[in-house]
This record gives sequence, structure tokens and C-alpha cells, in this order.
Amino acid sequence: MEVIITPEEMQGWSRQQHRTGLTVGLVPTMGCLHEGHLSLIDTAATRCDVVVVSLFVNPTQFGPNEDFAKYPRTVEEDLARCRERGVAAVFLPQAAVMYAGDASVSVVEEGLSGRWCGASRPGHFNGVCTVVAKLFNIALPDVAVFGQKDYQQAAIIKRMVRDLNFPLEVVVAPIIRDDDGLAKSSRNGYLSVAEREMGLGLSRALGLARAAVATGESDAGEVVRRMRQHLTEAGLRVDYVGIADVETLEPVSVLAAGQVALVAAYAGKTRLIDNTIL
Amino acid sequence: MEVIITPEEMQGWSRQQHRTGLTVGLVPTMGCLHEGHLSLIDTAATRCDVVVVSLFVNPTQFGPNEDFAKYPRTVEEDLARCRERGVAAVFLPQAAVMYAGDASVSVVEEGLSGRWCGASRPGHFNGVCTVVAKLFNIALPDVAVFGQKDYQQAAIIKRMVRDLNFPLEVVVAPIIRDDDGLAKSSRNGYLSVAEREMGLGLSRALGLARAAVATGESDAGEVVRRMRQHLTEAGLRVDYVGIADVETLEPVSVLAAGQVALVAAYAGKTRLIDNTIL
Repeated sequence: MEVIITPEEMQGWSRQQHRTGLTVGLVPTMGCLHEGHLSLIDTAATRCDVVVVSLFVNPTQFGPNEDFAKYPRTVEEDLARCRERGVAAVFLPQAAVMYAGDASVSVVEEGLSGRWCGASRPGHFNGVCTVVAKLFNIALPDVAVFGQKDYQQAAIIKRMVRDLNFPLEVVVAPIIRDDDGLAKSSRNGYLSVAEREMGLGLSRALGLARAAVATGESDAGEVVRRMRQHLTEAGLRVDYVGIADVETLEPVSVLAAGQVALVAAYAGKTRLIDNTIL
Repeated sequence: MEVIITPEEMQGWSRQQHRTGLTVGLVPTMGCLHEGHLSLIDTAATRCDVVVVSLFVNPTQFGPNEDFAKYPRTVEEDLARCRERGVAAVFLPQAAVMYAGDASVSVVEEGLSGRWCGASRPGHFNGVCTVVAKLFNIALPDVAVFGQKDYQQAAIIKRMVRDLNFPLEVVVAPIIRDDDGLAKSSRNGYLSVAEREMGLGLSRALGLARAAVATGESDAGEVVRRMRQHLTEAGLRVDYVGIADVETLEPVSVLAAGQVALVAAYAGKTRLIDNTIL
């Protein structure tokens, strides 16, 4: 497995793969790899000849009061997991090679970013779009794999690929959960035992939405109210609860199968998100 | 010569060139090709195996009161000139395939765009960055050639390539002028005989700056004042006159060789720009 630290070497490596007729799959991550990330790697491996994983805790997608400084870094373990999983190359850049001191160009999204996580995290998705655009230009993938866990992020990246004509396919891989239903997240490591128990409220709230669809309920507002109540009763501080169109992310008033239910809530100081397609 | 109208076909064509080991040079234009554009094509041909010219009058880089509707379109002549010049493929898209109705992602530049043309044309350079990013992802060039005539544009594109890690080299080719010094421009066709005469004031004003450097003058403000006076006396309405650092585009106070002198002025209703490296 190659460990590559500069954009130029990474571009050269990917071009060499293309020259020999191989397709490249990219899994962009912030490291601290868990089963969710490993499933993205497996998905990339089924679609491409060689898989590149990027490990980069991107400063520009964290707000000033967010957890950039304490975000977990486990580089040695991450590299070992990538090696075990058959990853061909890891891109592991320093922030100083990713962002020039006078960097002045960014990618902005102004249609899907306003609501949900975007409302709570101003600038977050522009930071995400910019770093992902850079990673696309650096790793030159044929396929890029993102997790459904960050549903809004995946929708925004698909929009960016469409609007800027990136020559690649975006694949969104399913959420991986612990046996009790908690969605895998690098931030789960922040949770105390009691907070982890609270965190189960997110997937249970999504279950309420699925049950409502199954029983033919149509009042989305009423279902959202019930989900919110469930989160609060679990001891969580709600950030948002919504049922939305899968592409536009606009809230719906009439519940129907094929929509997406989205939740974000704090267990103590830790912000957790989850979603499900209904 | 191939004439390609969809992004997907263009990507496929360029990938095929790369697969056969050929390098691709891109010359992005808005059509109405003149000797300036043809020199860019020649520059691309000296650097790459095959040359792609894009012909696209990009609506998003025109302001609401600018000349998008009347901007000259000469597609048949443009295609003939490209064919004569040995261009391998022309990319000729319709606006509807370039911009989805709900397009929401753009590329913005916030360091070099504030002054000069950017001050007179709000949003112009974000429109330029966005369409050029799209054209890079569509034509997948190894080298992209821009004209020095649009000096600020070229500086901003170089910044974009650096900050978003586009895997290509930007080449800036020299300004081509008529025998009397007027820089070639598609907009010169708007000029009456009297306005064209006025337009010579731009290159003469730049000559004042070159002469000042040659004679060891150091007060950039005084030279700018003299240039402005020259433009006004020629009958032009001045938009801006400046002497700036070649990379940051910040105005300088001490004149020196290696800086760039920039002018923009109206001859009647037609806005003309010009520049020179001192």
C-alpha cells in the first residue's frame, strides 16, 4: 500500500493507474476509520480496480466552536485497517499542503445547504465542497464513495459533481449501525455510557417515521412532532427533525414512501445525526 | 475536426486521447475568433498533441446591463478558422446543457477579484471561474491557454488551478495587437471609426508607464495620474487605471520593472481593456 502525502504525487499515481487501464475509486474520510468507512472501501473495491482512501481532518469544514482540535486522530490504526482491507493507496496530506496561506478560491453550494445541518453549521458545506473538489482533482477517481449517514453531504456532493461536471460517478453506500441501531460515527467515541443510551433515540425516532409510512399516515408534520417528542424524552437536545424530498431536501407536508427522514440531536455535548429513506 | 456538443461526449473524447498517450490543450473562448485567439491555439499546439477549442458565450459572466445579448456570434467562421488552424475538436455546447435550471454550485474567488475589472463587473469573475472549472472537467486538458489581454482573469484562473488542485498547467499567451497598437478584442467590432481612434489611447497610456520605468521614475501614483489624463484627453471615459503587483494585483506606490500596468476605459458605449508587464 502506498502512503502519499503530496497532491502532485497523488495525481501522478492516479494517472499511472489510468494509463495502465485501471479504474480508481476514492473514499474521502477524516480518518478514525470504523466499520462504516470500511464498508465504503468495500463498495469502492466492487466498483473499481484500485481504491484510494484519503485521511484528512479538513479544518475548513469545522466552525469556530466545533470539535476540530479534539476530533479523534488515529492515523496508525487507520493505515493498518486500510492495508488489511486491500486499499492500494492512502492520501495523507498535511493542512499546509492542502491550503496555501493566501488561498482565495472556494466552491459554494446555495440550494441544498441552507437547511438541516447547513442551518446549524454555517460554512460547513462550502468547506466540504471545496475540500472534496480538491480531493477529486488530486485523486482523479472514476468513482467516489460517500456514506448515506451524512445524507445532506452526499446530496450536495452529487449536486456539485453535476453542476461542475466532475468526470466521475458518486456512489452513496448504506449506513452501518451497531447491533442496537446506533449509526456508526467517529464522534460516538465522545459518548459516555449514559449518552450512548440516549443516542439510541435517533434511530428509534426514524423508526417512528418508517412505521407511520407503513400504516399509511399522511400528515408529515404530525410525524415530525412525534419524532421530536421521542428525541426529547430520550434526553436528547434536538437540533432538527425533518421529513424531506430525497433530492431537493425541501420539507414535505404529505408523508410518502421514498422520502428521507432526518434527525440531529445532542447527547450531552456530542452532536449526532441519522437518517433513513422511508 | 470533431464538433462536440455534450459534456459527456467531450469527456469521452479527451479520455480517449489520454488513453492513446496524447496530451490535450484547451483554449476556452466565447467565439468570434480573431488573431488573438488563433495565437492561443498556436501556443496550445506547441505544448500539446491535440488542441480543443471551446466556443461558448457564457451567460453567467455577464452582468444584467452588459452585452450578453448582442455579444457577436460567428459560429460558422469560428469553426472554419479552427479547422484551418489544425484544431482537433471544438466543444460547442448550448447554455441549457451547461447549466441545469436548478444549478446551485459555483466557484468563487475572493482575493484577486475585488479590484479592477472585478470592481466594475460584480459577479463576473465568479461566473468565469465556474465556467472554466466546468470546461476543465469537461475537456480534461493537460494545458489550458489564456490570453494576457484579460490579465486579471488569467491571474484568477491560475489561482483557481492552484487552490482547487486542477491537474493541469495554465499558460498565458501574449497580447496580439493591430499594427497601430489596439489590442485585438471581439468587442472592437462595436467601435465606430472615431471610437476606434479613441481606443488607441489605451495602448499609448500603457506606453507612458513603460517609458516612466525606462527613465527610472518611482512615483507610481504620478504615472497613473498621467495615464489617466492621457485616456481622458483621447476622449475615453476611464473605468480604471492602475499599476499593480503581477501576482497579488495589489496597487503599488513605488514603480518598478516587473509590475503590471492595467487600463480599462469606454470608447462610446464599448468597454475596452489593455495591460502591459513593465
